[in-house]
Amino acid sequence: MRRAVALAARGLGTASPNPVVGCVVLDATGAPVGEGWHRAAGGPHAEAHALAEAGPAARGGTAVVTLEPCAHTGRTGPCARALIAAGIARVVYAVPDPDPTASGGAAVLAAAGIDVAAGLLADEAEAVNAAWLTAVRLGRPHVRWKYAATLDGRVAAADGTSRWITSPEARADVHLLRARADAVLVGSGTAHADDPHLAARDIPGARQPLRVVADTEAAAVKPGARVLDGAAPTLIAVADDIPPERTDPLAPHAEIVRLPRAPGGRGLDIPALLAALHARDVRSVLLEGGPTLAGAFVAAHAVDEVIGYLAPALIGEGPAALTGAGITTIASALRLRVTELTRVGPDVRLTAVPTTVPQES
Amino acid sequence: MRRAVALAARGLGTASPNPVVGCVVLDATGAPVGEGWHRAAGGPHAEAHALAEAGPAARGGTAVVTLEPCAHTGRTGPCARALIAAGIARVVYAVPDPDPTASGGAAVLAAAGIDVAAGLLADEAEAVNAAWLTAVRLGRPHVRWKYAATLDGRVAAADGTSRWITSPEARADVHLLRARADAVLVGSGTAHADDPHLAARDIPGARQPLRVVADTEAAAVKPGARVLDGAAPTLIAVADDIPPERTDPLAPHAEIVRLPRAPGGRGLDIPALLAALHARDVRSVLLEGGPTLAGAFVAAHAVDEVIGYLAPALIGEGPAALTGAGITTIASALRLRVTELTRVGPDVRLTAVPTTVPQES
Ligand SMILES: NC(=O)c1ccc[n+]([C@@H]2O[C@H](COP(=O)([O-])OP(=O)(O)OC[C@H]3O[C@@H](n4cnc5c(N)ncnc54)[C@H](OP(=O)(O)O)[C@@H]3O)[C@@H](O)[C@H]2O)c1
Ligand SMILES: NC(=O)c1ccc[n+]([C@@H]2O[C@H](COP(=O)([O-])OP(=O)(O)OC[C@H]3O[C@@H](n4cnc5c(N)ncnc54)[C@H](OP(=O)(O)O)[C@@H]3O)[C@@H](O)[C@H]2O)c1
Repeated sequence: MRRAVALAARGLGTASPNPVVGCVVLDATGAPVGEGWHRAAGGPHAEAHALAEAGPAARGGTAVVTLEPCAHTGRTGPCARALIAAGIARVVYAVPDPDPTASGGAAVLAAAGIDVAAGLLADEAEAVNAAWLTAVRLGRPHVRWKYAATLDGRVAAADGTSRWITSPEARADVHLLRARADAVLVGSGTAHADDPHLAARDIPGARQPLRVVADTEAAAVKPGARVLDGAAPTLIAVADDIPPERTDPLAPHAEIVRLPRAPGGRGLDIPALLAALHARDVRSVLLEGGPTLAGAFVAAHAVDEVIGYLAPALIGEGPAALTGAGITTIASALRLRVTELTRVGPDVRLTAVPTTVPQES
Repeated sequence: MRRAVALAARGLGTASPNPVVGCVVLDATGAPVGEGWHRAAGGPHAEAHALAEAGPAARGGTAVVTLEPCAHTGRTGPCARALIAAGIARVVYAVPDPDPTASGGAAVLAAAGIDVAAGLLADEAEAVNAAWLTAVRLGRPHVRWKYAATLDGRVAAADGTSRWITSPEARADVHLLRARADAVLVGSGTAHADDPHLAARDIPGARQPLRVVADTEAAAVKPGARVLDGAAPTLIAVADDIPPERTDPLAPHAEIVRLPRAPGGRGLDIPALLAALHARDVRSVLLEGGPTLAGAFVAAHAVDEVIGYLAPALIGEGPAALTGAGITTIASALRLRVTELTRVGPDVRLTAVPTTVPQES
């Protein structure tokens, strides 16, 4: 199963809006005879790949797969049927399929007399598929908030300079995160201050994410902004009361989406923004800040994972990584659990997930 | 030498104002026959301990010692002489002694025909003795700044609550840091907001640090403050223009020291504060904040090590870990090098040292 999870991970960044899936087929003696993973929607599923590689050796063997084999006929045939046809005797899967249109595969297999076991390495298989599982369960994209801060939590200096807080190694790591995300999102403050490009650079074979700016007043992104170049598709989200004249100059370079304003608050309605992205097949969003938009996402319980790049540096002035989350006392702080802690060049990368369950949009 | 460094570490918290030293004596065949470490000023040095344990087996053997053996006669005889008298043939030490009154031991040994080698595991031996070496080289105590912050760098919430940002495990770890420090220091803001106790609790055999409050106006620490109890000695530093009536009520419970105000700035002159502590045999200070005093120490280039306890929590409001360090642009941020990264319960502990050389006071 560990091998199957590793195979599944190869699909990160390309399989979406489908889940990533890995499969290993063992022959009747337990020797591995086939491997597969799901690369892209419309292409063969992991099981089909692995069965094809195994050929007749699959008969009487075991299929180890990270996600419950599907039971529906989409662009490809149902995997449960393919496993039965190949004469597989046993299926071990990690995570049940929460998608109502595809689930039921385990029951189909069991009805055909196949020995079915679930739950093996479920945590690791869940983690590799976190974005897709979140999207299916909550009906909105998985949101990973990434920030780069000094040890005293500053994401920019008092003069607004924020580039090169972290090292080239950490910045290269962020390009990997972008390549794995379906969309990369910033607020108008960041668009205005940094004119960021938001594409995944220097990642061979990367699928570019959708670049998204939450620019309520259509005021931050101007013609000529780097985010409007041809490197990746771009979506500018503005308020639904913004007149077309304001957005017409951007229309040749980006999709414009009009969304309701946040009720009683500042900026755009976050559930509406996430719904608009979900409707565009976005299952994973890399939220790159800044602090105000990140605070609004925290307040909306719409942060599913936090990745902090911590530079060993001290400033003592400048904006903190997060602001305006509506939390005024330690007791009501959003608590998380550290899931990974590692060094990236001279910097530290800390990954954490909320210990309270995030909400549907 | 690794063993000798581990032995030296046992003296942390008790050997000061002396260095921590560890020694292993090997016989002529290379077998370990004696060990020693320096526990406390006035007590036997590490070499004397190890030679006593080795007895006649030291003859023709090797002494492995973390610091260059001393050449002076203080409260105990010079170690260089003792090693010669014991018939040691070879001395391997890690770090040369920078103290002009004690150095020269290597030369004495060599003149007596002993084979002397220096530099083995020097980095590790330097690290274990960082406080003492800093104090000798710079003529001021070593300053370790410790803070506890959320992922967004907050050390308190907007309502001023700061207790229990981090876990019981992290707080227990801080008591270990206190027990290893000669003095623990906070500013008047922290004394006022938190009424901290600052003693090392629940550490068997701990030597209590000197508790120090930088309270320029003699306004934050009032009779009945927890820092004035009998658990450990206390020093209140006030400005030299504060009339005695203001400090008289504290005098029965604490030493009062009058210091010049910072020239042109706020609060007390930091070099003067460090000099007053050095004069009281303080070689290591644990600076526990808050953000304003820490900022002044950073601005004075008087932070030698930073230990951050990072709680996986987000707030979005409240004071940042550091303020007023006089740094306005990323390019002039104080850069550090991460020396240790570990988990303490649910929290993360990050240790770093400035990559630029700190200044003398
Ligand atoms: N180091 C890092 O990781 C990092 C990352 C990003 C940014 N930064 C720095 O952060 C600074 C910018 O900070 P910022 O906080 O102004 O940027 P921001 O969070 O990118 O933008 C905030 C703006 O987004 C708009 N917005 C749209 N919908 C919103 C909603 N639901 N809630 C809140 N805001 C919404 C609001 O303006 P309108 O409603 O008027 O559009 C708001 O002012 C820059 O100095 C930048 O360099 C650092
Ligand atoms: N989580 C943590 O690690 C942690 C640690 C400590 C504090 N805190 C929190 O931090 C907050 C207190 O912050 P703070 O910044 O006010 O506290 P602080 O740094 O402890 O105290 C600052 C005060 O120290 C005095 N001071 C004396 N000499 C100084 C100098 N050379 N430079 C600057 N100041 C000097 C100044 O007041 P006078 O000159 O008037 O005396 C100054 O206002 C509280 O909410 C506390 O809970 C958190």
